Amino acid sequence: MSAAAAPSRLPTVDARIYPRGGLDVLSRDEVARLRDVSTGMHDLLRRCALAVLTSGSTSDDPRAAQELYPDFDIQVEQQDRGLRIDLRNAPGMAFVDGEIIRGVAELLFAVVRDLAYTAIELDGRAGGRDLSTSAGITDAVFDLLRNARVLQPADPNLVVCWGGHSINRDEYMYTKEVGYQLGLRALDICTGCGPGAMKGPMKGATIAHAKQRVRRGRYVGVTEPGIIAAESPNPIVNHLVIMPDIEKRLEAFVRIGHGIIVFPGGVGTAEEILYLLGILLREENAGVPFPLILTGPSASAPYFEQIDKFLRLTLGEAATSRYEIIIGDPPTVARRMAAGIRKVREHRLVQRDSFFFNWSIDIPLAFQQPFVPSHEAMAALDLHHGRKPHELAADLRRAFSGIVAGNVKEDGMRRIEAHGPFEIHGDPDMMQSLDALLRAFVEQRRMKIAGEYKPCYRVVA
Amino acid sequence: MSAAAAPSRLPTVDARIYPRGGLDVLSRDEVARLRDVSTGMHDLLRRCALAVLTSGSTSDDPRAAQELYPDFDIQVEQQDRGLRIDLRNAPGMAFVDGEIIRGVAELLFAVVRDLAYTAIELDGRAGGRDLSTSAGITDAVFDLLRNARVLQPADPNLVVCWGGHSINRDEYMYTKEVGYQLGLRALDICTGCGPGAMKGPMKGATIAHAKQRVRRGRYVGVTEPGIIAAESPNPIVNHLVIMPDIEKRLEAFVRIGHGIIVFPGGVGTAEEILYLLGILLREENAGVPFPLILTGPSASAPYFEQIDKFLRLTLGEAATSRYEIIIGDPPTVARRMAAGIRKVREHRLVQRDSFFFNWSIDIPLAFQQPFVPSHEAMAALDLHHGRKPHELAADLRRAFSGIVAGNVKEDGMRRIEAHGPFEIHGDPDMMQSLDALLRAFVEQRRMKIAGEYKPCYRVVA
Amino acid sequence: MSAAAAPSRLPTVDARIYPRGGLDVLSRDEVARLRDVSTGMHDLLRRCALAVLTSGSTSDDPRAAQELYPDFDIQVEQQDRGLRIDLRNAPGMAFVDGEIIRGVAELLFAVVRDLAYTAIELDGRAGGRDLSTSAGITDAVFDLLRNARVLQPADPNLVVCWGGHSINRDEYMYTKEVGYQLGLRALDICTGCGPGAMKGPMKGATIAHAKQRVRRGRYVGVTEPGIIAAESPNPIVNHLVIMPDIEKRLEAFVRIGHGIIVFPGGVGTAEEILYLLGILLREENAGVPFPLILTGPSASAPYFEQIDKFLRLTLGEAATSRYEIIIGDPPTVARRMAAGIRKVREHRLVQRDSFFFNWSIDIPLAFQQPFVPSHEAMAALDLHHGRKPHELAADLRRAFSGIVAGNVKEDGMRRIEAHGPFEIHGDPDMMQSLDALLRAFVEQRRMKIAGEYKPCYRVVA
Amino acid sequence: MSAAAAPSRLPTVDARIYPRGGLDVLSRDEVARLRDVSTGMHDLLRRCALAVLTSGSTSDDPRAAQELYPDFDIQVEQQDRGLRIDLRNAPGMAFVDGEIIRGVAELLFAVVRDLAYTAIELDGRAGGRDLSTSAGITDAVFDLLRNARVLQPADPNLVVCWGGHSINRDEYMYTKEVGYQLGLRALDICTGCGPGAMKGPMKGATIAHAKQRVRRGRYVGVTEPGIIAAESPNPIVNHLVIMPDIEKRLEAFVRIGHGIIVFPGGVGTAEEILYLLGILLREENAGVPFPLILTGPSASAPYFEQIDKFLRLTLGEAATSRYEIIIGDPPTVARRMAAGIRKVREHRLVQRDSFFFNWSIDIPLAFQQPFVPSHEAMAALDLHHGRKPHELAADLRRAFSGIVAGNVKEDGMRRIEAHGPFEIHGDPDMMQSLDALLRAFVEQRRMKIAGEYKPCYRVVA
Repeated sequence: MSAAAAPSRLPTVDARIYPRGGLDVLSRDEVARLRDVSTGMHDLLRRCALAVLTSGSTSDDPRAAQELYPDFDIQVEQQDRGLRIDLRNAPGMAFVDGEIIRGVAELLFAVVRDLAYTAIELDGRAGGRDLSTSAGITDAVFDLLRNARVLQPADPNLVVCWGGHSINRDEYMYTKEVGYQLGLRALDICTGCGPGAMKGPMKGATIAHAKQRVRRGRYVGVTEPGIIAAESPNPIVNHLVIMPDIEKRLEAFVRIGHGIIVFPGGVGTAEEILYLLGILLREENAGVPFPLILTGPSASAPYFEQIDKFLRLTLGEAATSRYEIIIGDPPTVARRMAAGIRKVREHRLVQRDSFFFNWSIDIPLAFQQPFVPSHEAMAALDLHHGRKPHELAADLRRAFSGIVAGNVKEDGMRRIEAHGPFEIHGDPDMMQSLDALLRAFVEQRRMKIAGEYKPCYRVVA
Repeated sequence: MSAAAAPSRLPTVDARIYPRGGLDVLSRDEVARLRDVSTGMHDLLRRCALAVLTSGSTSDDPRAAQELYPDFDIQVEQQDRGLRIDLRNAPGMAFVDGEIIRGVAELLFAVVRDLAYTAIELDGRAGGRDLSTSAGITDAVFDLLRNARVLQPADPNLVVCWGGHSINRDEYMYTKEVGYQLGLRALDICTGCGPGAMKGPMKGATIAHAKQRVRRGRYVGVTEPGIIAAESPNPIVNHLVIMPDIEKRLEAFVRIGHGIIVFPGGVGTAEEILYLLGILLREENAGVPFPLILTGPSASAPYFEQIDKFLRLTLGEAATSRYEIIIGDPPTVARRMAAGIRKVREHRLVQRDSFFFNWSIDIPLAFQQPFVPSHEAMAALDLHHGRKPHELAADLRRAFSGIVAGNVKEDGMRRIEAHGPFEIHGDPDMMQSLDALLRAFVEQRRMKIAGEYKPCYRVVA
Repeated sequence: MSAAAAPSRLPTVDARIYPRGGLDVLSRDEVARLRDVSTGMHDLLRRCALAVLTSGSTSDDPRAAQELYPDFDIQVEQQDRGLRIDLRNAPGMAFVDGEIIRGVAELLFAVVRDLAYTAIELDGRAGGRDLSTSAGITDAVFDLLRNARVLQPADPNLVVCWGGHSINRDEYMYTKEVGYQLGLRALDICTGCGPGAMKGPMKGATIAHAKQRVRRGRYVGVTEPGIIAAESPNPIVNHLVIMPDIEKRLEAFVRIGHGIIVFPGGVGTAEEILYLLGILLREENAGVPFPLILTGPSASAPYFEQIDKFLRLTLGEAATSRYEIIIGDPPTVARRMAAGIRKVREHRLVQRDSFFFNWSIDIPLAFQQPFVPSHEAMAALDLHHGRKPHELAADLRRAFSGIVAGNVKEDGMRRIEAHGPFEIHGDPDMMQSLDALLRAFVEQRRMKIAGEYKPCYRVVA
Repeated sequence: MSAAAAPSRLPTVDARIYPRGGLDVLSRDEVARLRDVSTGMHDLLRRCALAVLTSGSTSDDPRAAQELYPDFDIQVEQQDRGLRIDLRNAPGMAFVDGEIIRGVAELLFAVVRDLAYTAIELDGRAGGRDLSTSAGITDAVFDLLRNARVLQPADPNLVVCWGGHSINRDEYMYTKEVGYQLGLRALDICTGCGPGAMKGPMKGATIAHAKQRVRRGRYVGVTEPGIIAAESPNPIVNHLVIMPDIEKRLEAFVRIGHGIIVFPGGVGTAEEILYLLGILLREENAGVPFPLILTGPSASAPYFEQIDKFLRLTLGEAATSRYEIIIGDPPTVARRMAAGIRKVREHRLVQRDSFFFNWSIDIPLAFQQPFVPSHEAMAALDLHHGRKPHELAADLRRAFSGIVAGNVKEDGMRRIEAHGPFEIHGDPDMMQSLDALLRAFVEQRRMKIAGEYKPCYRVVA
């Protein structure tokens, strides 16, 4: 009815921000294009910027920020000797006594930088990359990471940490302790830069780096436009990259990480494991060392047992040579990871591969292209024993992705309503195993569904 | 009588450690003296070193470390081009995969540096300081701090945080949040470097400094040989100084800090408040700005109310002009402190006083000399209204100190047993107020006594 | 017919060199292209590399190096993590006890970097620049300079020094003294990086920078493929850029320099003065401050008097407002230049122009395109009074260029032999003045001709 | 008579100068003592300061500066947060547009620092050093050098260059070229910091360091109050130390240098060679590597031949094992020196001796104490064959010193006038050889005497 009914407004700030370093030396033309591009993708820019500006907020509901700051606006302006960002009604939490937190300002410029780069360079006109080939996509991933200054000549020490964003406190403290142990060994951290398993390792490493007097620790966040809004980067992140889509983001993790640790997570984490094993089990990658450790606190042991069981049944015992499960022992996790990375280093030296980008690992086009879970696509999956493990891993990942969509994503649920359950061709035992895994996730509250879990597919042998 | 009875041994490490930087350029003679001195004070060195090496351990029982590592030994050795420290059976927790944590190694060398400096320079033979005068003591404090490289030309930004080492979780989280808010404003932290209120602010500031990209944040720990063993410095501490005694430690806080925040604590904290007010209320210091904030979470409000009441009753309303109580509001604490320090900066510029050492504050000899609470000394106290507030504050601090000794310290308790309760001359209302304060500490478990609290003194008007 | 007849060989070295920093993070594709490109322009690369490797040699005969090191070869190789340069039979003078001088190695990588960048980016396929427009050319100049890391955000302090490469000792010492005085005022130096007037200021500034503790002094050399071989960069040069042609090189000087000092030189120097005045006298540039000082030792006074007279007669008195002549007074030269640059700084701030690239100065297409002195082109010149000074300056520069070619360059001399003298349309007094200037150059040995000087043109009113 | 007769005044400047870094963190007491001490030794301070402020002037007449700037004055003042130096009527040549040259300011503070340190610490009251023992003197040398921050942990690379201050141009250019070759090999330079052979190597090394991108090259000047006025330190010197007397200065050279190069010089240089050989030939130093190279251009060959002949005759062939003579070949000099220093490095590692101070070389008290050439002292010399070479070298050095004094120093000449020629006991051939050497110096104008050379001594067998 009146202003009285309006929700109490959160404090906001208007501010003008100038880049330090990186974005300084632009040509007039580039600044103009940046401004034009940022106008063209204004909504995307606004959403990503808001995510960065509300980083550290406790909510992980992407819509929340949009609703809490409806009047927020961002403009990229051409300025005497470079760039200026104008913020209006920006969340007060990003500021201290009217001054923007430096880490937040850096992330804000990273957002502008990456969105503009993607729009300008990767749109087919200028870059000259052929994005329909595997090599072309890999080159594009390289270019974007280099432009973001993530690629630097230094000894291998970057550990990618995967895991859920809404894990329980026990699990969160565990990720922090693992990060601490990694940091004590002067290892740097790369995550998807959201909360939970993506934040814990960075916080732990920050404290350990302080103790070890590591002043230039890297906390790399790799995200993409659809995720960043839901998974706000913590400002500890001092290198942020926004990849254009989920597949390029996954490739970035694999190319820049020297090893991967997987903490407990939901179905997304399971998909990531299948993605990675689908790559590592390829014959082409047989000789490429890549430390992969699945770990969690004692209470999470059942989670990894189920995953392990499922992997053994579907991909065969051979798959287990590619990963190691360690329960409740952060120092051992860090020690094993450090040892694994030493082997990576030796291998790169022998192969004359770069330290900062894993050129030699083979990622086929199928893993680089998005999977849209239509009924046709799901019916085309082939989940039978006897297939090559890496091919099966790829199809399992797709099946997983489709089933999740059918259960919790708006698009997928609508498809199921319209056309009935997916038909999946697969061996019954494999499908039962998959089903058991999904039910367990629901029980452990790692997959949130409304009401009771009902399979959205049926098996066609 | 058999191995079965022996406690399970904790892991230990033998190691040789070399200094980086500071202690490098010593003359042959100095290295020899350092080795000799360290032999002469071997037990002291051993205890302090053990405290540093067990930093981060959860226990705060000083004897625990001694008992857990009975075979620990440390030797300072003369080495080709300088110094070497040999450790035997050192706590494994200070090492990562056999390598000592760098921060711990730095603290270890700080221990050697300060103990040796004290022994060599301040023993009356060499330094030429007259330690029986106030100016002589202040110069000695300056020399020791300079030798420890704590004095550096930089803008005032050092906040001293006082408070208890065994505060509750709620209070601990609050100290961390205050440290975080201070760090966001690029303020550095100085504490007594033990656990609790001495660790929280540093941890909070570390995270905030990371977000603000402050790479050279200072976490200064000031301790003394009798305290360090009980209050192990956290390795976040990147400047550690061991002052020769409690009084010089207190003076160090006052001379290098640009403001002081007091968190909830026990009787020690109350003593520190009285020490500081005893100085600030002197006429000589009337014009010296010195921000002093008492703060805690909402649940700690009663604690500060009692302190406040006690201070008003004893020192008069005027005393309240020297401190501010802020409850449950870390951002305001930090903002007020930052504003106070800006005033300190202006004052120093006008007074042509140094930024790194508060030469102009007047600390009389009485505050620089130890107080030994004998029956005679206690009987000589004069706790009546009408005295000058700073003199009263000084005597109140001594009374406090004596009563605490009589209740919980071995020496004091024995004296009471032998000679009966102390006789204290004072106005009844003042003594009752003091008594009420002590009882409240006991109730809030801030003073640990065996059995019921019984006053160890009687009032003589 | 035996070894005895062979000339005594100069010492040579075979070496493999790896870049430090800049060229490290290249994609596989880029390294491959670099290698391919360097193969395609192998001869050019070889010549430029040889110039760099023989820098400091006393001879300034471009062919000498080629003949002295006939077996020299260079290859760009793809290497494990980047680039490698293989040298065979390289001049021993670039090495100290088998190790290449670091400054020389840097220049060598600058050669590869710039030649490859020009070949890859500016060849029309990739860069997307329209090199037929003035703005397109300016953007290309910007891109190349940025790629060479010459553009850095810093206060204006770059003084371009022009002048002859074969000046007499007196004049050389004078350029050194001017460089010394500039260096004392913390000004940096940019030259064409050959010997003589291009080397003296850098040497002087190096000594002055050492005295003023300027550790990051910049000694920028801007050259082009046709010149570098004849004018070997001195290894004091710590930023070398190879522009694609003479016109882009001149534009680079004007865009990055904050002021220009002209020392005595030959006809080339006279051409440069006319080029610059042709730009500065444009109405569009009337408000753009640009300090321009002509200076030399007392003995060189006649040289500048003649130039001055010529400029007054041809371009009018107004032209003299754009330059200042200072004879025999290095401190005043430096002081005036420093004052002029302060004005440049203020102007850029007001105009919101960048400090590192003079976007606002107008350089028309005619000055950006090469002038080929054919008989037709020479006949098209219009050297009559009454034209706009900047247009006349442009044509005078072309006339100059053509006459020099007709006298001393192989191409031009052949044209004159074949078709007779150029016909130039111009007012007699102007042509006589030009003739007088040329004769003076010959007399002062600033233009080297075989036999007597004979005009290669005739005037057509 | 009138103002017209007064000499034209040189430009002077009044200025206030503040230290950067080093002298910042002083106690109030120390600043006060510094001011007092500088008052007490005002004339000495004034002379040394004037030397530094006129550095680079062409004259090497010590009195000249005093006479040219009669009104010059310097005061050390206590300043808000440290020290301030007030200059009145200071030579304008030390300033650029009213600002003091930074290198000159650094040298000025070095003068204050060292004179004050000597006065305060080495006066017997405070330091506690026993300067009547050899070890005590060495410790004092160490302390002074450390206080001047000359001692730094780094790989051995400091080459001491000795030689005359008034050598001819040919010789000067040669010292520059040797410095250039040393600099190319990343060696640093230490000299007596006057003109001639003390300046050339530094200038050459500065250029070479620029080419090799050595940004932290050290140019160490070691002088003493009696010399500095006559041998103004060049402001390239970035570490200046003023030792209390000639003997401590010589010891400083030997302790911090990793090798010594001797260029042509006068009698002073010959004395230095005898001093050094007197030490190196001691049995105690038989195992201590110490590269010593005598070098000059071809035209200087006779000089070194005479020296060599004299050394062989007096000290025996064995003495030649301690030095190497290289004529006209700077690269070889540098190469041999670099090789010699590598051996020094290995020896220090084995002996566990420091890199920055040669503790293990034995310098007996006789070499550390001043020699005053009275008739008695000269008569006590024992210049006969058959003595141990190092003892003979010591006496030869003294004989030399006395004869020089008798010929050119005021004191000595007066003594000769009063008491007749010195009586020296020695073998005739040795004395003739010495005489021949002196005559040659006179002929080569390396020893300046008024009128004809007349021996000021007679030989007593």
